[in-house]
Amino acid sequence: MIDKMRFAKKLASAVANNNSLLCVGLDPDLAKLPTSIARGENPLLEFNKAIVDATADLVCAYKLNSAMYEAEGSHGIDQLKQTSVYVTSKYPNIPIIMDAKRADIGNTNNGYISYTFDYLNMDAVTLHPYLGGEALQPFLDLKEKGLIILCRTSNDGAGEFQDLIVKSEPLYQRVARQVSDKWNENNNCLLVIGATYPEEMKIIRDIVGDNMTFLVPGVGVQGGSVADVMKAGATSGGDGLIINSSRGIIFASNGDDFAEAARNEALKLVDEINQYR
Amino acid sequence: MIDKMRFAKKLASAVANNNSLLCVGLDPDLAKLPTSIARGENPLLEFNKAIVDATADLVCAYKLNSAMYEAEGSHGIDQLKQTSVYVTSKYPNIPIIMDAKRADIGNTNNGYISYTFDYLNMDAVTLHPYLGGEALQPFLDLKEKGLIILCRTSNDGAGEFQDLIVKSEPLYQRVARQVSDKWNENNNCLLVIGATYPEEMKIIRDIVGDNMTFLVPGVGVQGGSVADVMKAGATSGGDGLIINSSRGIIFASNGDDFAEAARNEALKLVDEINQYR
Repeated sequence: MIDKMRFAKKLASAVANNNSLLCVGLDPDLAKLPTSIARGENPLLEFNKAIVDATADLVCAYKLNSAMYEAEGSHGIDQLKQTSVYVTSKYPNIPIIMDAKRADIGNTNNGYISYTFDYLNMDAVTLHPYLGGEALQPFLDLKEKGLIILCRTSNDGAGEFQDLIVKSEPLYQRVARQVSDKWNENNNCLLVIGATYPEEMKIIRDIVGDNMTFLVPGVGVQGGSVADVMKAGATSGGDGLIINSSRGIIFASNGDDFAEAARNEALKLVDEINQYR
Repeated sequence: MIDKMRFAKKLASAVANNNSLLCVGLDPDLAKLPTSIARGENPLLEFNKAIVDATADLVCAYKLNSAMYEAEGSHGIDQLKQTSVYVTSKYPNIPIIMDAKRADIGNTNNGYISYTFDYLNMDAVTLHPYLGGEALQPFLDLKEKGLIILCRTSNDGAGEFQDLIVKSEPLYQRVARQVSDKWNENNNCLLVIGATYPEEMKIIRDIVGDNMTFLVPGVGVQGGSVADVMKAGATSGGDGLIINSSRGIIFASNGDDFAEAARNEALKLVDEINQYR
């Protein structure tokens, strides 16, 4: 079954098939949707379907930020699920990432696992590291899934704790080292590294080697540069990155041409990324 | 309006009215519910209603772990909301805490805020510190709500990052210090400190003084001791703690007497806590 394919394999296949490291963030803020869509019964879903249909040959993954759906309550969660059903059935070779930034103690994580993988049928999920690997073990045991650990986040104030020196290196490097050395027994861990911190990204690549993929938010509206990211983060083979853009693509136009405008922005970004591969 | 009352005031009032520091965790794992309840259409809601009716005069707060509801998909989220509606309308003086352990970058947190406070109408939420105070600012700006930051979690492996020495103190102490000194301008921050780490709790109380409340999971099934928690964490006035028990109370019986059994366990725990106040 395609949905039981290991995340890493599914990702590699989408990267190769579409010749792309671009991930489109399906983060449909209801207030920003075109009026014709916003008026409908399932605006988040209909918006996503149009974006996905317009970009499915250009991406290596889709990422869905849970906050955008939770904001609409249980009806938002329904549309999140229907989006997953749509992508999984129509584009079964494209992995979908749940950007939920979860993490609780051991047993409780099973609830989040049921939600993310059984109910929503996602391929990967983002996780906070603060509770440690022991707490996240129920996630780490899932060999077929991608576990994407927050390491260096893209926000301005990321350094408040992440830059604190522990054992002669900043905490974010320690997180990268622990994930790489201790958590990754099933070779199913990835790291979140913001595009806004290319120097840090380079150091992390040196720490973890070529064997780990980075999910990279922060290109586009947040100001991260594709050139910097590719130089700092790509593996020696020119990949190992999932470069996410959300608002810059999905809100490229707020008119009825939003899907076409999104496709054009995605094409531009893929071309820009591929210049450096 | 009662639901606009400041969290701290609502909590203090419930502590005083019920003479209790006990928080009951409404974490209704579907697999553990009595058969008569599990068979119903809204088992999580019906279970919660019975537990709440049996304990509302004994608690200072209820805490709902989001994972338990997400596990049941959008129908679980509906029941989470209906539980909130039930408590808020029938017991408007008891604050309800959303144990969701969220945190994303600035803007994205607005989705979680809509979910937790507009849609679910909770009084407080638990948050991960890893992204820093700048990222959490949209939460910290909410003067009427309780923002409960993970500081020292109750799990065995909590120390992996939390015990790393930064600026001559462990990271968890640094988190406590930052929250107390920098994040708490609106006097709406609390800390999560596991009952399983009383020595650390004592140190944190010394750092933050009497002016901050701790949410304390880990009493009961996880092995934390009420005596240790009260000695280590209570303020000089004998409070400043929200002591949570979930499984030990709500699953005290798996028969039709589950609500009565929960009440008996809650009574025992309140008595035990009050011995040390």
